[in-house]
Amino acid sequence: MTATTGDSIAATGQVTVLGLGDMGSAIARTFVERGYRTTVWNRTASKSAPLVDAGAIAAATAAEAVAASPLVVVCLLDGAAVDEVLASVDAAVAGKVLVNLTSGSPARARANERWANERGADYLDGKLMGDPPYIGTPNIMIPISGSGSAWAAHEPALKALGSVAYHGADAGLAAVEFMAQVAVSYELLIGYLHTLRLVQAEGVDVVQFAERVAGSIPAYPPLLTSMARAVKSGDHQPDLGSLNVQAALMNDMISHRESVGVEAMRMREVKQLMDRRIADGHGEQGFSSLFELLTKHSLS
Amino acid sequence: MTATTGDSIAATGQVTVLGLGDMGSAIARTFVERGYRTTVWNRTASKSAPLVDAGAIAAATAAEAVAASPLVVVCLLDGAAVDEVLASVDAAVAGKVLVNLTSGSPARARANERWANERGADYLDGKLMGDPPYIGTPNIMIPISGSGSAWAAHEPALKALGSVAYHGADAGLAAVEFMAQVAVSYELLIGYLHTLRLVQAEGVDVVQFAERVAGSIPAYPPLLTSMARAVKSGDHQPDLGSLNVQAALMNDMISHRESVGVEAMRMREVKQLMDRRIADGHGEQGFSSLFELLTKHSLS
Repeated sequence: MTATTGDSIAATGQVTVLGLGDMGSAIARTFVERGYRTTVWNRTASKSAPLVDAGAIAAATAAEAVAASPLVVVCLLDGAAVDEVLASVDAAVAGKVLVNLTSGSPARARANERWANERGADYLDGKLMGDPPYIGTPNIMIPISGSGSAWAAHEPALKALGSVAYHGADAGLAAVEFMAQVAVSYELLIGYLHTLRLVQAEGVDVVQFAERVAGSIPAYPPLLTSMARAVKSGDHQPDLGSLNVQAALMNDMISHRESVGVEAMRMREVKQLMDRRIADGHGEQGFSSLFELLTKHSLS
Repeated sequence: MTATTGDSIAATGQVTVLGLGDMGSAIARTFVERGYRTTVWNRTASKSAPLVDAGAIAAATAAEAVAASPLVVVCLLDGAAVDEVLASVDAAVAGKVLVNLTSGSPARARANERWANERGADYLDGKLMGDPPYIGTPNIMIPISGSGSAWAAHEPALKALGSVAYHGADAGLAAVEFMAQVAVSYELLIGYLHTLRLVQAEGVDVVQFAERVAGSIPAYPPLLTSMARAVKSGDHQPDLGSLNVQAALMNDMISHRESVGVEAMRMREVKQLMDRRIADGHGEQGFSSLFELLTKHSLS
């Protein structure tokens, strides 16, 4: 691998941005505002105009844009668009640091890294966890992973974009972080929507219920971290009460949801897992101990 | 219905507690400490001893205990225990206010209310959302529902027990609140455990991941309340981005989870719901709009 050194970027402050959708444009604008000599390219060239007005330089081709800077930030619609643009650049990436902020899977990030390394480029993968207006502010989380030397060289430039954190040398880790954070959020929110159905079916005002749920949210950070410590150590204290006590409640919850026509998918799964832990002699442990059953082969 | 008036309890400050498990004992002790003349009863009489030492009066039978006070708080192991004890009391409940704090379903609460009303007693149902040490502090939530006049008469006594809120005349509403709050919590926590499996399988430290999740928790209260407002009004703005954009991510998330052997049950459900909303022409709406599909007959 060939890596551009930190000195060169610090000295030159040159960066290229490939892709000028809402995110790419916000990224390029941020670099311009921070004083970087910013070269931009987009398939539809007209997208460059407002950035050129702001002080960016428009390149005619992606390869020409890549040639202009040691640091190349890619932010396109999806992985297919990345593949296409990178194929058009090909050998021109040699000696560059490629930072791909396009959404996609860990597997795709790892494949992109191999592609870059084969052409003598260093690779970083990042995920944008927030909306375009937050680019350049601390209010957008950007996990980054991949080449440690590339990160060391370009940390200041990348940190201009938001709350940027380096997750390790495995290029897939930024995507893992993104997907895991999104999963926690979606699990909460879809369960929450089903529960809004439940309370609405019982004649409860959903907004008032929401305000009560919102009031209970500050209890979660210590619970989540203590459960992760239990998972890591295998020492499962009765966090929400013992499984023996919790399991007794689950049948009531399941039958109540069924009686008002609200799905009980997760409640049934939780009950089944609790019953198995209790049968295995772990009824005095807490909710976190269900983790011990969540292996590949134990899922029904 | 016959209701004890607020004046009588204010004047006499007499309360009976049936059931002296950890919760019942904590309740009786709190009443004693607040100056109520507290009569207690438990099937195993020895449980009364420490409370009698503290100033409570032990009754020989449940019926005798009920006769001693206008306000009777019941806190037993489960609904079957409640049925048995109430059957032994029977007509002695006439003219009393029965407050059942035993865990159980909305249906059971409503059945208990009918039983009490048929015998000339008023009924309130409550659920204890917290552990025994928090009884008598603001750190235990206690939703209460049922007879409005009984609530008006005994609000001060009941508020001695914790953060007590009256949810309405339907005796089942306290159990609905409890089950709905627990459901939101379990949905988050089981999804979280599966996600800890995911990040652990990818070599990520689960405790460090937990700390990052914990850091994102303060974003939820405004999101949860705004989603409930969208559900109530039917006006679904693109909360987490449009469904069109969100759905594109779901396939990556599902295939990633499958590739590392972590369940994707909820992700598949979410994807299916998003696809249906998009097919119905609502792709520009947000996550909250999935609520529109969560009716009894639309679940697959």
